[in-house]
Amino acid sequence: MNKWLRLEPVQAVPYLLKWLAIGCTIGILTGTSSAALLAALDWATQWRESHRWILFLLPLGGLSSGLIYHYLGSSVEAGNNLLLEEIHDPRSIVPLRMAPLVLLGTTIAHLLGASVGREGTAVQMGASLADSSMQVFRLHGADRRIILMAGISGGVASVFGTPLAGMVFGLEVLAFGHFRYDGLFPCAIAAIIGDRVTLAWGRQHTVYQIPNVPELTIWGLISTIIAGTIFGLTAMVFATLTHRISAYFKAKISYPPLRPFIGGIIIAIAIQILGTTKYIGLGIPTIVSAFNTQLPPWDFAAKIGFTALSLGSGFKGGEVTPLFYIGATLGNALAPLTNLPAPLLAGMGFVGVFAGAANTPLASTLMAIDLFGANVGIYAAIACICSYLCSGHAGIYRAQRVGLSKY
Amino acid sequence: MNKWLRLEPVQAVPYLLKWLAIGCTIGILTGTSSAALLAALDWATQWRESHRWILFLLPLGGLSSGLIYHYLGSSVEAGNNLLLEEIHDPRSIVPLRMAPLVLLGTTIAHLLGASVGREGTAVQMGASLADSSMQVFRLHGADRRIILMAGISGGVASVFGTPLAGMVFGLEVLAFGHFRYDGLFPCAIAAIIGDRVTLAWGRQHTVYQIPNVPELTIWGLISTIIAGTIFGLTAMVFATLTHRISAYFKAKISYPPLRPFIGGIIIAIAIQILGTTKYIGLGIPTIVSAFNTQLPPWDFAAKIGFTALSLGSGFKGGEVTPLFYIGATLGNALAPLTNLPAPLLAGMGFVGVFAGAANTPLASTLMAIDLFGANVGIYAAIACICSYLCSGHAGIYRAQRVGLSKY
Repeated sequence: MNKWLRLEPVQAVPYLLKWLAIGCTIGILTGTSSAALLAALDWATQWRESHRWILFLLPLGGLSSGLIYHYLGSSVEAGNNLLLEEIHDPRSIVPLRMAPLVLLGTTIAHLLGASVGREGTAVQMGASLADSSMQVFRLHGADRRIILMAGISGGVASVFGTPLAGMVFGLEVLAFGHFRYDGLFPCAIAAIIGDRVTLAWGRQHTVYQIPNVPELTIWGLISTIIAGTIFGLTAMVFATLTHRISAYFKAKISYPPLRPFIGGIIIAIAIQILGTTKYIGLGIPTIVSAFNTQLPPWDFAAKIGFTALSLGSGFKGGEVTPLFYIGATLGNALAPLTNLPAPLLAGMGFVGVFAGAANTPLASTLMAIDLFGANVGIYAAIACICSYLCSGHAGIYRAQRVGLSKY
Repeated sequence: MNKWLRLEPVQAVPYLLKWLAIGCTIGILTGTSSAALLAALDWATQWRESHRWILFLLPLGGLSSGLIYHYLGSSVEAGNNLLLEEIHDPRSIVPLRMAPLVLLGTTIAHLLGASVGREGTAVQMGASLADSSMQVFRLHGADRRIILMAGISGGVASVFGTPLAGMVFGLEVLAFGHFRYDGLFPCAIAAIIGDRVTLAWGRQHTVYQIPNVPELTIWGLISTIIAGTIFGLTAMVFATLTHRISAYFKAKISYPPLRPFIGGIIIAIAIQILGTTKYIGLGIPTIVSAFNTQLPPWDFAAKIGFTALSLGSGFKGGEVTPLFYIGATLGNALAPLTNLPAPLLAGMGFVGVFAGAANTPLASTLMAIDLFGANVGIYAAIACICSYLCSGHAGIYRAQRVGLSKY
C-alpha cells in the first residue's frame, strides 16, 4: 500500500481536491462580484446617457472619489499594482476594503462620464475577496500567491466572458517574457467557474461578429504584422501618456483628492467642446460599430486622450475596455489600407492593443478565440505577438516584472 | 534622429524582419517536408491495407531500419531527444541526414505495420532541415536554439494542421512547469507558414467533428476532471511501458538492429492472433470512429501495447498519433459513465492523453481549438491540465527538463 501512496499521480489527488475547492470558491466570489459590477455599470451608463446634465458633475465625482480613497483607501490606492507586488513578494493580506472602494469609485467614474474600464475593478474585487476569504485556512506565502493569481483570472474571465483568456491572464500578467505553471489549475477553475457564475446571475456579454475570416495569404500576413506593429506602438503611446499625465498631476497637485477634480474639469469641458459622449465610459456602442461600419480615423486618438487623462488624474476603473475601444477603432481605420476585411482588423486591434499594453500576447490571443471564434486565432496570434514585441518594456502595469527581455 | 533610433520599438524592427525571414524559410521547409511525409504515409498505409501479406515482412522491415540506423544514423538515433538536448545546450549542428533517415524509417514502419506516429518524424525533418539550412548565416548558440524550436513548431503545425498548437508546442515541450517567450514570434511564423505550405502542396487533414458541446455544468466539470485524471494516468502508463520495453530490449539484445527484428516478430504474431490491423499504423479510421460510434472499451489498451512494443523495440516514427488514438478511444469508452456526449469525451481524450505524455497542456488545449473549434476550449483546458498534473514527472521525452515541479 505504501508503495502505491508514493506514486506521483496519487500525490496529485490532494493537490487537485484542494485547488478545486479553492478555485471554485474564488470563481463564485469573482463571478458574483463581476455580475454586481456589470449591473452597476449598466445602470450608471444608462442613467448617464439619459441624464446628460450629470456630466457637469464629473469634477465633483472625481473629488468625492479622491476623498474616499485619500481618507479610507490609501492602503489600496495602488490597485492592480498592489496585487502584482503582493504576488511577487507576499507580505500581508490584501485589505478587503479594496473591493467596495473600487466598485464605488468605478461606478462614480462611469456615472459621471470619465473614460475608464472595468477589468481593474473586477480583478481588484476578485483578488481581495479571494485573499480575505481564504484567510480562514491560514495558507502560507506560496499558496497566497496562487490565490491572488486565481482571483485575477476569475475577475478577467467573468467580467469579459472570456474563460480561456482569463485563465492565462492571471499567470501571464505577472512578468513578461516567461510564465510559470504553478497556478495553472487554480486559475483555470477560477476563470471557468467565474465566467459561468456571472452568466448564472443573468448578466450577458456583448457579442462581436467577424463574419468573414479569409484564408491567410502572404499579403494578409504582411498586413497583419504591420497592423500588429502599429497596435504595439499605440499601446506604448497609451501607457506612456497615462504614466506621464499621472506623474504631472502628482508633481503639480500635492493634495490627491484635487487631482481627479481638476482632471474632471478638463474632461467635462472637452466633452462640451466636442459635443459627444462617444469617448467617455466604456464606449461599447462604438466598439460594436467598429465591427460593422466605417468610423472616423481619429476615434482611437480621442479615446487615448480621454482615457489617459481620466486614469492619469486618478479616476478609478480599468484600462482594458478603453484599450479594446482604441484597438477596434484603430483596426477599423487601418482596414482600408490593407486587403483584409474591416471586422477582422477591428478584432485584431481589439485584442492587439491590449496585448501590447498589458504584455500578455497569449491571453490576448485566447481572448480573440473566446470572443470571435477559433478561425481568428492565427491572425490574432500574429497581431498580438507583434504588438507585444513593439510596445517597449513599460506597459500599463508598473509592478509587472521583466522575466526576459523581449528581443 | 539618434534619439529616435534608441527608442525600443525601433529596435524591434530588425528583430521582426530577421525572424520573419527565418521563420518563413523554416515554415516552407517544414511544410514541404510534412507534405512529403503525409504523402509517403498515405501511400504506405493504402499499400499495406491492400496487400496484407506484407505484414509478414515486418521483422525484416525492423531489421533493415535497424541496420540503416546502426551503420548510417547512430549520430541521429536519439531523434527528438537529440533536438531537445541541442536546444538546452547548443553544441553542434543537427546532422542533415536525420531528415531522410527518419522519413525512410517511418515509411518502412508504416508500410509493414508497426504502430507508430508521425510528429516525431515531422519534427526531426523540420528541425534538422532548419538547422542545416541556417548554417549559411553562421548564427550563434541562442539563435540556433530558436531555430530548432521554430523547426519543432513548424513540424507539429504542418503535420497535424494545427498552427496555434504548433506555435506553443515548440516553446512548451522544452521543459515542464514554465515557458519562455524568446522564440514566440519565430515559432508562430514557422507554425503558421508551415501549415499553409502543407495545404498548398495539396495535402488535406482529417476532420474530426464534435457536433454538440453542452454548456458546462457542475457535473460536467467533475466528469471532465475525472476523465482528465484518467487520461494522465494512461499517459504515464504509456510513457513508462515504452521506456521499460526499450530498456528491456537494450539489456537483452546487444546488437541494435536485432531489436526491431524481434519486436517485429512479436507484433506480426500478435496481428495474426487478433486477426485485425486496427491497432497498427496511424489508426486514423479508428480515431474517426471514436467520434461517431461506440467502440470496444479495450481498444485503447491494445493500442498502448502495440505502440509501446513498436517504439520500445526501435521502430521509427512519432508517439503522438498513437496517443490521439489511445485518448480518443479511451474517451469514447468513458463517455457512457459520464453525462457528457461521446464525441466531446473522444475529443478531450485525443488532446488529453497527449497533454499528459508530452507535458504540454497549453499546446494540447490549443490543438483542441485548432481541430474542434473554440467552444471545446474550456473542456479541453481542464482535461489537459488535469492530465498534465496526474501523469508524473517522466513523459515521453527523456530530454525534457523539469522547470518547476508540477505541484
